[in-house]
Amino acid sequence: MLLVQYKKMTDMTVLINGEPGDQIASSDRGLQYGDGLFETIAIKNGECEHWYEHMSRLADGCQRLNIRVPNAQQLLVEAQQLCSDKALAVLKIIITRGNGGRGYRAPDRVEATRIISVHPWPSHPDENITQGIRMHLCDTLLSYQPVLAGIKHLNRLEQIIARNEWNDPGVSEGLMSDIDGNVVEGTMSNYFAVINKELVTPEILGCGVAGIMRSHIMAQAILHGISVCERKIKLDELYAADELFICNSIIGVWPVRKLADHSYKVAGEVTEQIMDGLI
Amino acid sequence: MLLVQYKKMTDMTVLINGEPGDQIASSDRGLQYGDGLFETIAIKNGECEHWYEHMSRLADGCQRLNIRVPNAQQLLVEAQQLCSDKALAVLKIIITRGNGGRGYRAPDRVEATRIISVHPWPSHPDENITQGIRMHLCDTLLSYQPVLAGIKHLNRLEQIIARNEWNDPGVSEGLMSDIDGNVVEGTMSNYFAVINKELVTPEILGCGVAGIMRSHIMAQAILHGISVCERKIKLDELYAADELFICNSIIGVWPVRKLADHSYKVAGEVTEQIMDGLI
Repeated sequence: MLLVQYKKMTDMTVLINGEPGDQIASSDRGLQYGDGLFETIAIKNGECEHWYEHMSRLADGCQRLNIRVPNAQQLLVEAQQLCSDKALAVLKIIITRGNGGRGYRAPDRVEATRIISVHPWPSHPDENITQGIRMHLCDTLLSYQPVLAGIKHLNRLEQIIARNEWNDPGVSEGLMSDIDGNVVEGTMSNYFAVINKELVTPEILGCGVAGIMRSHIMAQAILHGISVCERKIKLDELYAADELFICNSIIGVWPVRKLADHSYKVAGEVTEQIMDGLI
Repeated sequence: MLLVQYKKMTDMTVLINGEPGDQIASSDRGLQYGDGLFETIAIKNGECEHWYEHMSRLADGCQRLNIRVPNAQQLLVEAQQLCSDKALAVLKIIITRGNGGRGYRAPDRVEATRIISVHPWPSHPDENITQGIRMHLCDTLLSYQPVLAGIKHLNRLEQIIARNEWNDPGVSEGLMSDIDGNVVEGTMSNYFAVINKELVTPEILGCGVAGIMRSHIMAQAILHGISVCERKIKLDELYAADELFICNSIIGVWPVRKLADHSYKVAGEVTEQIMDGLI
């Protein structure tokens, strides 16, 4: 009996409102309307990397959507239940507004649903780091929606449509622009470019996700004495950039070798500095 | 035992992939990313109103999102299981891309998930029909996203944010504009206006849902010898309109008595003709 319980604990991959299980009510507003948020967190040696930054963005998202902010301490305890024995894994936290009601109006009293799941670390070729990646330029544009910009919400159809524009496994990511021609982010990543010796990354005001690794790199850059500018970036500027790299919480940093037909030096001086600081 | 089974059948309110139950896998892409579509259908005397039109829009949405188109005959059988004994009810059908994968890329082989649920008919005051409704003008704008315009997808955060702008139960709906100032639709409805003796309704090209009741009214109007124009409509034109009404599959038609501070004649001649044709 004890053995069975122990096995169950180590095999456990999902906690829903603190209980082991992998099913949620079909009436949950996360499913009905995409009414919620998520975080994807790297687990290294049983620890949640950049935990406070993830919790801070999650709380910001909840406040902006008027979803009850989850108790970060409770989330940490649950994350540790799933991850403390994992050397390398991916933790995903979904917070939905909760269960209730047909109709867009949020119920007056509703408990947010929390879904915490652990996943195997994705296997990516080492060459993504050492030789850089190839990138697609997506036709699908990001819509302008400042009330959702920055937060990591569950309405991800734009990213799904964009990600399904290419099938070539040699292409690792796709860049998405907004309707004004500003290149904003990858389907699953943020990006930085070195333009005229300056490290620049798109502002996340009208669309896009304010990535945790993006913030971390900005802070790292400043520590290294590299100034960073957040601003609008057009495609022709990107083609003229000296260096280009993408980042997210799981992949860390991948230099870009090729964007559509344009080639970049891999890994340029600034990219290497950033990668050295991170890894 | 038979009695128990009979009770279970009549109490049944949700079928998931054809089986009674109200839980779905937390890894379903409908929850993870809002990766799916839905239809809300009026049940009257056990029959699904405008069934073929709903199935047609659902199939169009599936094709555009590259989700496997569900078998409409199977959906009808399942809808009848839930609804054949219902005099008046609401049927909701959700189709998600299915269960699978962490990441935006759609899995190569995946079975769509179908969630069919029946809900009580909502209670709205008769005055909504006889005296018209009051409407709010939403601050939240609809984003321009032609790849999603027209279809009834699960990414509904814009509508949720807009619907939560007002709490006054005397206000029945809110109108939403796009970023160019065109008034596109209600949070849960389409609208028609009579402007210079012409029935007009917004085009649904950059955003908005192509409502089934909207299409039905357009067809009805033509049958009544009333021409209908789909075009962009600005707010000042709406204020100058002679008549204004909203529609969806459940409410049918509600004349608008007041939009923000502006009053309309209820129900004007064209609105009455449309309501007579529908009810």
